[in-house]
Amino acid sequence: MDCVFCAIAAGQIPSTKVYEDERTYAFLDIAPGSEGHMVVIPRAHSHDIREVEPADLSAVFAAAQLLTRRAYEVLDCDGVNVINNCGAPAGQTVFHTHVHVIPRYTGSDKDRVGHPWIPKPASAEELASLGAKFAL
Amino acid sequence: MDCVFCAIAAGQIPSTKVYEDERTYAFLDIAPGSEGHMVVIPRAHSHDIREVEPADLSAVFAAAQLLTRRAYEVLDCDGVNVINNCGAPAGQTVFHTHVHVIPRYTGSDKDRVGHPWIPKPASAEELASLGAKFAL
Repeated sequence: MDCVFCAIAAGQIPSTKVYEDERTYAFLDIAPGSEGHMVVIPRAHSHDIREVEPADLSAVFAAAQLLTRRAYEVLDCDGVNVINNCGAPAGQTVFHTHVHVIPRYTGSDKDRVGHPWIPKPASAEELASLGAKFAL
Repeated sequence: MDCVFCAIAAGQIPSTKVYEDERTYAFLDIAPGSEGHMVVIPRAHSHDIREVEPADLSAVFAAAQLLTRRAYEVLDCDGVNVINNCGAPAGQTVFHTHVHVIPRYTGSDKDRVGHPWIPKPASAEELASLGAKFAL
């Protein structure tokens, strides 16, 4: 099996399970950004989020929502980031679609997560020009 | 109307629409982290992702998937990040659930996004202890 996440879902590579259902499998990241950093995958292989079938997409984010709630309950975290990286330039390193569920702890060394982007106000002209590109 | 995103969805505050359907509304972020940074919201108000009803959760991430595909098509980006911040300690600033869809551009000043976390290997003991907390 070439895909490490397919192998994890199949139990061929060990992992620490935090949730599973018919369509999804979720486990602890072995190189976490914070304590309790989890990864949710659809069992069905796909390269990235663009390819995921609707029922699997719903199931993966329903699992992410459930694990967000559970993280508050069992880890006593202060917040959670739910993150999908699509494509290597966006930080995707395993090419089986996955969603990170990352508990946050204010002012704690259990938390090695920062705000991912620097906001910069856009002009009305820039917004109108970009918006026009999305018109169908 | 106290909630700025409810007001945007209702058209009471102007925004640059990139997508909408019965359950969701999506618009350009006015202080983007990269060119074409979008925000997807469920029309129904909720404080954060923990509260979103299943049909709205599915609809919001289906819209995020659609906009990820569209970003590659119309913006010629190299990748996309799909991010939900749950709670102020995770970077949530508007308390109406929303998902960021952030196009990525390799080596371009259109892109002000970094990798959000510093990975640190976890020991087998740490993983087992955390995993046990998630057992139901």
